[in-house]
Amino acid sequence: MSTCSPLHLPAVCFVWQIAMIILFGIFIRYDEESDAHWIEHRKHKNISSDIENDFYFRYPSFQDVHVMIFVGFGFLMTFLKRYSFGGVGFNFLIAAFGLQWALLMQGWFHSLDYTDGKIKIGIENLINADFCVAGCLIAYGAILGKVSPVQLMVLTLFGITLFAVEEFIILNLIHARDAGGSMVIHTFGAYYGLSISAMLYRPNLDQSSALHGSVYHSDVFAMIGTLYLWMFWPSFNSAITDHGDAQHRAAINTYLALAATVLTTMAISSLFQKHGKLDMVHIQNSTLAGGVAVGTAAEFMLMPYGSLIVGFCCGIISTLGYIYLTPFMEKYLKIQDTCGIHNLHGMPGVIGGIVGAITAAAASEAVYGQEGLINTFDFVGDFKDMVPSKQGGHQAAGICVAVCFGIGGGVIVGGILRLPIWGDPADDSCFDDEPYWELPEDEESIPPIVQYNNHMRNKDV
Amino acid sequence: MSTCSPLHLPAVCFVWQIAMIILFGIFIRYDEESDAHWIEHRKHKNISSDIENDFYFRYPSFQDVHVMIFVGFGFLMTFLKRYSFGGVGFNFLIAAFGLQWALLMQGWFHSLDYTDGKIKIGIENLINADFCVAGCLIAYGAILGKVSPVQLMVLTLFGITLFAVEEFIILNLIHARDAGGSMVIHTFGAYYGLSISAMLYRPNLDQSSALHGSVYHSDVFAMIGTLYLWMFWPSFNSAITDHGDAQHRAAINTYLALAATVLTTMAISSLFQKHGKLDMVHIQNSTLAGGVAVGTAAEFMLMPYGSLIVGFCCGIISTLGYIYLTPFMEKYLKIQDTCGIHNLHGMPGVIGGIVGAITAAAASEAVYGQEGLINTFDFVGDFKDMVPSKQGGHQAAGICVAVCFGIGGGVIVGGILRLPIWGDPADDSCFDDEPYWELPEDEESIPPIVQYNNHMRNKDV
Amino acid sequence: MSTCSPLHLPAVCFVWQIAMIILFGIFIRYDEESDAHWIEHRKHKNISSDIENDFYFRYPSFQDVHVMIFVGFGFLMTFLKRYSFGGVGFNFLIAAFGLQWALLMQGWFHSLDYTDGKIKIGIENLINADFCVAGCLIAYGAILGKVSPVQLMVLTLFGITLFAVEEFIILNLIHARDAGGSMVIHTFGAYYGLSISAMLYRPNLDQSSALHGSVYHSDVFAMIGTLYLWMFWPSFNSAITDHGDAQHRAAINTYLALAATVLTTMAISSLFQKHGKLDMVHIQNSTLAGGVAVGTAAEFMLMPYGSLIVGFCCGIISTLGYIYLTPFMEKYLKIQDTCGIHNLHGMPGVIGGIVGAITAAAASEAVYGQEGLINTFDFVGDFKDMVPSKQGGHQAAGICVAVCFGIGGGVIVGGILRLPIWGDPADDSCFDDEPYWELPEDEESIPPIVQYNNHMRNKDV
Repeated sequence: MSTCSPLHLPAVCFVWQIAMIILFGIFIRYDEESDAHWIEHRKHKNISSDIENDFYFRYPSFQDVHVMIFVGFGFLMTFLKRYSFGGVGFNFLIAAFGLQWALLMQGWFHSLDYTDGKIKIGIENLINADFCVAGCLIAYGAILGKVSPVQLMVLTLFGITLFAVEEFIILNLIHARDAGGSMVIHTFGAYYGLSISAMLYRPNLDQSSALHGSVYHSDVFAMIGTLYLWMFWPSFNSAITDHGDAQHRAAINTYLALAATVLTTMAISSLFQKHGKLDMVHIQNSTLAGGVAVGTAAEFMLMPYGSLIVGFCCGIISTLGYIYLTPFMEKYLKIQDTCGIHNLHGMPGVIGGIVGAITAAAASEAVYGQEGLINTFDFVGDFKDMVPSKQGGHQAAGICVAVCFGIGGGVIVGGILRLPIWGDPADDSCFDDEPYWELPEDEESIPPIVQYNNHMRNKDV
Repeated sequence: MSTCSPLHLPAVCFVWQIAMIILFGIFIRYDEESDAHWIEHRKHKNISSDIENDFYFRYPSFQDVHVMIFVGFGFLMTFLKRYSFGGVGFNFLIAAFGLQWALLMQGWFHSLDYTDGKIKIGIENLINADFCVAGCLIAYGAILGKVSPVQLMVLTLFGITLFAVEEFIILNLIHARDAGGSMVIHTFGAYYGLSISAMLYRPNLDQSSALHGSVYHSDVFAMIGTLYLWMFWPSFNSAITDHGDAQHRAAINTYLALAATVLTTMAISSLFQKHGKLDMVHIQNSTLAGGVAVGTAAEFMLMPYGSLIVGFCCGIISTLGYIYLTPFMEKYLKIQDTCGIHNLHGMPGVIGGIVGAITAAAASEAVYGQEGLINTFDFVGDFKDMVPSKQGGHQAAGICVAVCFGIGGGVIVGGILRLPIWGDPADDSCFDDEPYWELPEDEESIPPIVQYNNHMRNKDV
Repeated sequence: MSTCSPLHLPAVCFVWQIAMIILFGIFIRYDEESDAHWIEHRKHKNISSDIENDFYFRYPSFQDVHVMIFVGFGFLMTFLKRYSFGGVGFNFLIAAFGLQWALLMQGWFHSLDYTDGKIKIGIENLINADFCVAGCLIAYGAILGKVSPVQLMVLTLFGITLFAVEEFIILNLIHARDAGGSMVIHTFGAYYGLSISAMLYRPNLDQSSALHGSVYHSDVFAMIGTLYLWMFWPSFNSAITDHGDAQHRAAINTYLALAATVLTTMAISSLFQKHGKLDMVHIQNSTLAGGVAVGTAAEFMLMPYGSLIVGFCCGIISTLGYIYLTPFMEKYLKIQDTCGIHNLHGMPGVIGGIVGAITAAAASEAVYGQEGLINTFDFVGDFKDMVPSKQGGHQAAGICVAVCFGIGGGVIVGGILRLPIWGDPADDSCFDDEPYWELPEDEESIPPIVQYNNHMRNKDV
């Protein structure tokens, strides 16, 4: 373990949390739908019922997204035999920090009320903060088991910052649409994490190879994460789309894409293993690739069969990635990707961006209706003269921005994380909870007297 | 293991998924609430707000149902000590395939737009597809651990097809009401699975008896499944009922029935075990019987105490079924029912149908109100002259159809599955993940050097 | 084990469930939003759409609360190495009983229709019943592993009764506001449980010390409980607040308070352990303290930074409680608190009450708006002349009532539970599932032949 005082983590947590309190005190207030003045606002705007408060449009989706962030990502990372505490626990830590910082960063860009200089937050801001955190949790997947919690906090601080800038450029300046974040969240997060992992390359990581695998029950725990991500992905992709048909359609498209992905993942997994057996790593991860890849286009008129095609392809690509690309990247590119995020978020994210660009470019008034086209692509204000084909180009530009921010940011942050001050684990202590967690004694070490009692009791029965 | 090429599973997955894409391309489109033309439709129909899109009435329930299908059924089937991968993994596979085929099959019967020959789907279709899949997952419970994934795919293909026909007969032709699917889903699914299990009877199954049981932590995993099924059953029974009071009432009735079931299950479990101990098998399964049995009548004016009575009885019957009927069926009827689906879905499903018939027959304008009666039982169109007593008879006819389809379909499909081409496991490899999954090394096989370290560390503490 | 017939538990379950059926038959009916007359009621009240049925305002929150009760509390209590069945199973039993009794008790106080003497229930009653049960589950935490299921049933019967009276005094007579139940639920539940634990003090509990701890995977199971409580706490605190901005604001405040708690919990946990390691006990429990402490004030204009401050402080206090106060209480006050509920619910609950009193006293028309102030604090009817400063005093009085009811009730019920008729476990059988559950054989006892086969198969691969 590199030099690191045990005071680092407490100090970082305290200082940053106090900073959050001060910044929230200066900047953050309720928006008009969560403020006690809502009743006056409602009358003023002639809104007929409380049910039209944005809360009721988005809260169910928000809670699903929240589950994906904490249980989905958290449990997906419990698959290692002795890093389950770190998987779920550090995920919890950085998500809880990240969402606060994200409310500020995204708030400055998107929710600043220029009349009083305050950020006004409501339920949509919470969803966006969770989204922003997702980018950093994806990056965590690449370096799972190889870094200290303080390093993760630093990764998150910079990751959220970069995310907010990148998101502003893609969504506002370039005016790309990205409801489910294929580009903004997944592509960025994956390349950010991979670049950091490359910068932190450990040539002697095989010293920890005994712990670099799962046991039977840790694989079952990971399936909890997989299933919650899989089930709630329709909520993820529809959470911040427009009210009405857009949320409805995004949920349907995502549901279908994910279903198709499961079948092709199983097929490829079985096809490439000896004796046609299935590999849990693929089932846990590649089954989700369809949700990533349909993220951008989910709110468009992708058509149900289009969603199936996207899911079909991504199950194949993602699983083949685990089989061929991950070992290749480790051997030749010196990128050690613990969870295989390149297969789950990187490639499917880029594909998602491309699918979005094509779908946008192919949009027509015949399919969307005149008003539908304007609503779906937000052809208003500065962009009221935009046409679908041009929108397709803007979408493609979005992909490039996401990749550049991911790689560029990752290289810089990776460089910072190489400084020998963060307390990262030694090569033979990777994938081990022991350096950072008080561990319970093993079950085998229950004192003999008790085992004897149990034995006797069982005999009596 | 019978003859089976390792290429079977990949081939089936690929071919069927491609077939789905083609059929979806030909037939499936968005309905008016998920299509980009919604905004025009809304103005045309004078709908005042986006919140009246069906999405907002049903999406929260849909997500709960989705969790029941994948986590509920999936984890309930992880209880076996060495079949947790197969329990949760194959459940995932067949549900993901089944819901696609269900969208088509149910769509042809219920959502076909005759003007253009397309099936128009929205959130209600997704819920119904999940329901349809539930029937097949119930059937899986009877043969858990004894079949190959390819057999499960075949079971699902035929099961969904039979389900859609049976459902059309019961709901549309007979005009029975079955909101929570006591008849349509549970009765059908249970007898379908039991008939298949009878056809696939294995006289030498005791060769796998060492694996036919749970370990401590696999029982805790199964409780995840149990609790999610239990908690979200009110959503299951209310998901597709009418807007307003019907959804509200169905949730209340189900909540109460399930609460009562827990108490009588615990009572009977304790009463019939030596020393008054509780048996996890009963807690995991019989506590859910009340939800099954209240399915048909949940939307009716069953009254809160009526719901408690239904739950009370089903907890008793289901638990006694585990204690007496399952061994009897295995010994004398040659039906090996791994999860005891006859106790959880079969008997409670039939009871649910009967409760529904009685409640319907006893309905009156005094209790429902004139409009309420018409709305609740859908006495409109061809059935506008229907009366409650006659409706009760129709409900009873529905039970018979469900049982007949279950048994008849199961015998035929079971016959198909007996062909020696499906790669089912040998009698001494049942309840074992080993034939179909790459398994991690056991915890004990962590290389000695690491165990030594652990050992030393424990000593130091 | 003290004298107890194995018939006790079945007898209690049967008799009480039958009593519930009778009382429900006499008293409980649907309210106007869940009754089939809704359609007439809707027209009569000129309600424009079914979406304004209270069901759609509250059902998503209800389901989240339901998950907290059964999975959240249930899995949080699986952390002991050999008491996971009892943790999740008895939680299930007493919650299922408690919610029925709560519907009656709370119904008599709050939902009685004086025109016909019936209690009219809807979705809000179900949420309140779940809340009421939470108080008893909190109390269970203090005595986890040391009591029999029959004792738990008695604890619940009296606990619900006391809760309903206490709640009526605090909310209706004193007119304190307590949306998230900091006082009503958490303070009461904690002191009720601690008093019972004190009355049941076991001087020789160290005979069970070998089982009084976790193993690796039981700690991961407990994290499921922690995360579901943490994620869904915003729903808990907003479930029964007013429609519109109050639900919206309560969710935001809780979300923020909990995020801050995670950071300070991690900080203190690391700071006070050898080598800066983290302790799972703190992560599992103290991270939730912010949700408790923000319960009362969540619907007020606490401001986002105010929520962070509350969460910040509670993470510190709760974690320090685990490190210093719990051992102190066990040694000097003879209170054995298995789950440390004093740190998670007791202190944070009282803090929550104080925060609520201060926030209420500081309320002003400038911040809330005139109508907003009246709505938020319900200054109508008998209390239409109330002012914020006086409301603050009433809030403070509420804390005292909750503490008094908790301690007083706990002493009495604890006295009842000391009678030697309840079948509580012997001192050397505490924290052990063996007395109450049929346990599966250990994994090690898989017959040698199978292990051999596995071994051979692995070799072949």
